[in-house]
Amino acid sequence: MHDGELSILDQTLLPHEEKWIVVHSHLDMIAIIRRLAVRGAPLIGVAAALSLAQLAESGASAAQVVRAAAELREARPTAVNLMYAMDRLSPLATHPAKLVAEAERLFDEDVDLCESMADEGAALVRDGDNLLTHCNTGGLATVGIGTALGVIRRAHEQGKRIHVYVDETRPLLQGARLTAWELSKLNIPYTLICDNMAATLMRDGKIQRCFVGCDRVAANGDVANKIGTYGVAVLAHHHRIPFHVVGPRTTFDANTATGANIPIEQRSADEVRGGKSPTDAHVFNPAFDVTPAALITSIVWGREL
Amino acid sequence: MHDGELSILDQTLLPHEEKWIVVHSHLDMIAIIRRLAVRGAPLIGVAAALSLAQLAESGASAAQVVRAAAELREARPTAVNLMYAMDRLSPLATHPAKLVAEAERLFDEDVDLCESMADEGAALVRDGDNLLTHCNTGGLATVGIGTALGVIRRAHEQGKRIHVYVDETRPLLQGARLTAWELSKLNIPYTLICDNMAATLMRDGKIQRCFVGCDRVAANGDVANKIGTYGVAVLAHHHRIPFHVVGPRTTFDANTATGANIPIEQRSADEVRGGKSPTDAHVFNPAFDVTPAALITSIVWGREL
Repeated sequence: MHDGELSILDQTLLPHEEKWIVVHSHLDMIAIIRRLAVRGAPLIGVAAALSLAQLAESGASAAQVVRAAAELREARPTAVNLMYAMDRLSPLATHPAKLVAEAERLFDEDVDLCESMADEGAALVRDGDNLLTHCNTGGLATVGIGTALGVIRRAHEQGKRIHVYVDETRPLLQGARLTAWELSKLNIPYTLICDNMAATLMRDGKIQRCFVGCDRVAANGDVANKIGTYGVAVLAHHHRIPFHVVGPRTTFDANTATGANIPIEQRSADEVRGGKSPTDAHVFNPAFDVTPAALITSIVWGREL
Repeated sequence: MHDGELSILDQTLLPHEEKWIVVHSHLDMIAIIRRLAVRGAPLIGVAAALSLAQLAESGASAAQVVRAAAELREARPTAVNLMYAMDRLSPLATHPAKLVAEAERLFDEDVDLCESMADEGAALVRDGDNLLTHCNTGGLATVGIGTALGVIRRAHEQGKRIHVYVDETRPLLQGARLTAWELSKLNIPYTLICDNMAATLMRDGKIQRCFVGCDRVAANGDVANKIGTYGVAVLAHHHRIPFHVVGPRTTFDANTATGANIPIEQRSADEVRGGKSPTDAHVFNPAFDVTPAALITSIVWGREL
């Protein structure tokens, strides 16, 4: 954001095209979030906050700002960071300058939380470890260095010789498109795999530790994250491999008792069909799944808010 | 095969195009098998047999036939049906008419074995069951009604109300392209999923039983099958869901002691990259994995040879 102009990198076009989208209104932002041009739980929260700040700064009434916040909350249902950001900004609707400052604070806090998670998580990584990650949890998913991928980056910066196995993460390939691209830019050695190949790597002793992000942590420690995470957790448990979730305190939701209460977004059948299956194929396409606390070795939170 | 002319349906183009390829030589057949235009362990064996019969019938010398059999064996390393078929035909190289008759016998046996597996496996399916399958094991993978998918078809024909969850089966999408197409033609209700969605369905009690095919069964009961099968077996074990392997006796390999001795084919990185990842992404792309006998509830063999 610069002088009221808000630009967003379109993540649907990566890695082959880097196109920035100018965001003119909160309705633009809702559409951008829905089609996943902006994605990643922490980034969604901050992007929505900046969009609301843009509206407040433009001279909109307090009622308009409160309504826009309510509409932004509805953009996607699972990542609680979005609700958290709107909850912090809405009460400031009558004080545009304060709301803008609070949105900027959310931005800065996310950077800071990422650093703190990276330090905490990197301490778990040993020299020579092969790590598995799922989806994209790097600089693209946050405004800082990322959550799970921030941990991996920090371990690499500490000189630990690591190798990262990257789940491609069907159906939208955030691993193949975004995580591979980030790791490549960071010169961190990685191998791209289909999601269904992680099991055989684990059986062969090729994975020492898993790091994934999260979209919401329930009060009992159950975690909603990108579809496929739960399967990785079961496989890690079967092979006695530590499974770590990395997410800032902004993804913790004290108001949701267990994972069973987390709303799971169902997305379009065409994301799975991809032009390859029969065009009328019936499809199940949840964007997230829930991993029970019992399968999680630890949650890397970083510092308190 | 008709009057020495051998035609093969190109499975790489399904379901959107049904194109038949005329096979002129065993070298054609090797190329066709390698690029998966013909696939499915039982079908590979029969197709190679028919190709060798075509050569024998054309007046090739016994030495040429033996050499061609050795070359066909090398087309793909994992499915043992190919080796089994060549082992049955090679000793008949000096008797072209007998070799042709034996190839036709292999064809007929496969049809018959499929029927027998279908009967045996369908007895395991209860009315109202939701079944999970991986890859394609239907009429396209055999010359009969299929292995795992033959079981499913028979259960449906018996009037059992079943629903099939179909793993899309990355990277080559045999589930999304071929199994979905076959189920659609058979009017069997199904839902297509990404491979990484099976776990959450199991946790939600949506899967009562898994049926998969196999490319080779070792002497100790370990099974090599399409990559992703082992992960499904671990997930089924964790959720206490029966996991059945369906394969004819021609996939049993008494000469391979355990799964660790089964050669696993590694395929091209571009199958995984698919134009979506960084073009230089390092990739792990095994076509198969090994499921240990301990995770297999039963192997549905059908009748003896």
